[in-house]
Amino acid sequence: MEHDHPETHLKSSDFLRDVVIGMSDGLTVPFALAAGLSGAVDASKIIVIAGIAEIAAGSIAMGLGGYLSGKTEQDHYTNEVKREHYEVENLRHKEIAETKEFFANIGLSKEIQEQATEEIAKDKDRWVDFMMKYELGLDKPDPKRATKSAFNIGVSYVVGGLIPLSPYFFIDSSIEATKYSVVLTLISLFIFGYSKSKITGVNALWGAVRVTLIGAVAAAAAFGVARLFDH
Amino acid sequence: MEHDHPETHLKSSDFLRDVVIGMSDGLTVPFALAAGLSGAVDASKIIVIAGIAEIAAGSIAMGLGGYLSGKTEQDHYTNEVKREHYEVENLRHKEIAETKEFFANIGLSKEIQEQATEEIAKDKDRWVDFMMKYELGLDKPDPKRATKSAFNIGVSYVVGGLIPLSPYFFIDSSIEATKYSVVLTLISLFIFGYSKSKITGVNALWGAVRVTLIGAVAAAAAFGVARLFDH
Repeated sequence: MEHDHPETHLKSSDFLRDVVIGMSDGLTVPFALAAGLSGAVDASKIIVIAGIAEIAAGSIAMGLGGYLSGKTEQDHYTNEVKREHYEVENLRHKEIAETKEFFANIGLSKEIQEQATEEIAKDKDRWVDFMMKYELGLDKPDPKRATKSAFNIGVSYVVGGLIPLSPYFFIDSSIEATKYSVVLTLISLFIFGYSKSKITGVNALWGAVRVTLIGAVAAAAAFGVARLFDH
Repeated sequence: MEHDHPETHLKSSDFLRDVVIGMSDGLTVPFALAAGLSGAVDASKIIVIAGIAEIAAGSIAMGLGGYLSGKTEQDHYTNEVKREHYEVENLRHKEIAETKEFFANIGLSKEIQEQATEEIAKDKDRWVDFMMKYELGLDKPDPKRATKSAFNIGVSYVVGGLIPLSPYFFIDSSIEATKYSVVLTLISLFIFGYSKSKITGVNALWGAVRVTLIGAVAAAAAFGVARLFDH
């Protein structure tokens, strides 16, 4: 029996993961918006413009949002490292108590708590690393990774969003175009939901159904609501 | 100097956190879509319909997406717990080695590694808990929390989305309505970005600027792109 953690999956295919996440998300909302609008607007042209505007907005919100929150996470980590270094130097008794508490919580005896804490406290850098990871639960963020990831997700959102929109480019009647868009998008959602789940290490068939279902329900709701307001 | 971890913040205000996240996200894309469409469509009515469709699609994608991914996370956790229990019973030597490796990685001596591992391995449930948390890095998901959180975020997305859209309900000229929408939304984004950062424990002013900036850039891009395609 092999251990098959999602962590190893993630590291082996970061790029693929970003692309699939961006695409399957990009498919959902532009698809639902276009289908929704077709319930109220006859001309495909308006839907193309709305779809393009949504794709621009969504990809920037996702890409820029991801990039900036990566930067914030980075700053947060740097601040916490500084704080831990300060505490290790100046509030040693407090850090000792916290380290002991960690070992107590995982179920070690008083004696081993003392000895383990003593050993860890010998190397200050290592001690800070330990506190960052296991007391605060913070992993060291990779700044380059965050930027690249944001970019890949943003671009994939655009590509994903163009799939449901493509029939509206060629077919003037919005209801007619929507039929092609629905078929094309549900198939794509299924494929990308399947890939996304394979990559993130959850049951792939259930993942595919899940992603497809979200898209379908969102589109149906958007269609219904747009109809309702079209009076 | 007090330790001020984001974790404690999060737990003390889960509801508030969901509302602010849903609202500040809900403000961004419907805002950008409406502003973008106003570059190509004169009648506010079309923008209202598109906005309502986007809000329906986005809130369902976020809410249902959050709910279903919470369920998946739950299943994944349950499976991993089963696997760890199996391994603790049937592959004891392997688990012992992994536990020792954990203690080696944090910098403990061979002797303390052995003793700590021996102590942890006495209580199998505790040992499994330890492996789940520190070997696999998985926290026990709270199923009720995931559902509530998805619902709160979804509803807040709707409320947030109605803010940028509101001027289009009352003003027929889309360009005229957009002026009010921009002012109203940028102020709201600033306030919600500020609150969001306060709650998640990052620098609040930078957080407010960040959220506002993302909204403004997304809206400008959507406006430009919609203009471009309106020919």
